Amino acid sequence: MNGLGLHILMEFYECSDTILNKLDVLEESMNEAANVAGATIIKSVFHQFAPQGVTGVVVVAESHLAIHTWPEHGYAAVDFFTCNTDMDYLTSYQLLAKALNSKVHNYKSVERGLINSNIKQLDEL
Amino acid sequence: MNGLGLHILMEFYECSDTILNKLDVLEESMNEAANVAGATIIKSVFHQFAPQGVTGVVVVAESHLAIHTWPEHGYAAVDFFTCNTDMDYLTSYQLLAKALNSKVHNYKSVERGLINSNIKQLDEL
Repeated sequence: MNGLGLHILMEFYECSDTILNKLDVLEESMNEAANVAGATIIKSVFHQFAPQGVTGVVVVAESHLAIHTWPEHGYAAVDFFTCNTDMDYLTSYQLLAKALNSKVHNYKSVERGLINSNIKQLDEL
Repeated sequence: MNGLGLHILMEFYECSDTILNKLDVLEESMNEAANVAGATIIKSVFHQFAPQGVTGVVVVAESHLAIHTWPEHGYAAVDFFTCNTDMDYLTSYQLLAKALNSKVHNYKSVERGLINSNIKQLDEL
């Protein structure tokens, strides 16, 4: 890895719309996702929107995890930003796909903070 | 925009190392960045690391803003995730570049939640 940070952008489609609107279930799943990756949780902040949708962030010592849900579209966006390459984000990804009951999902990795690069543009892995 | 969310990944290089380690200044700047974009702040959570570095998240009604700083490298990563296309993220970007005293900076936009796309892969603008 050339970047200071590794940022995983996860897309979860065709999820359970019920789960995507349950703050407590989502908060528990996101905290579990942080734990299985080996992250140290500092704070968890979740917010329920009306009429639907949840947004939540788990601040961890290694950076953060964030989720935004659109129950009406069965979609959730999850970000896992880490400054530690040892984080097992793949296990978090699999855990969340299962927890959200997502039938279609993918992720993309983006390196952040390319301080040793001559051209400091964002680059995909 | 085809996505449900618009995610702006900002890179700030060659910043003031002093500012990148000042939690109060960073929290104020990030809250200001949310305000100038037209976002409604729900909660702001910032954490100071030892020996250096700050991580912080501003949860807004339109999603979130996050910052992670590496004072030792003069670098800060900022994310502005929004589900509202009317957010003026460019003004936030310019405000932060100035607040961090960044000499080299760039950003990239990524559409999230391509529910109307046949191929639900992340795509760059």
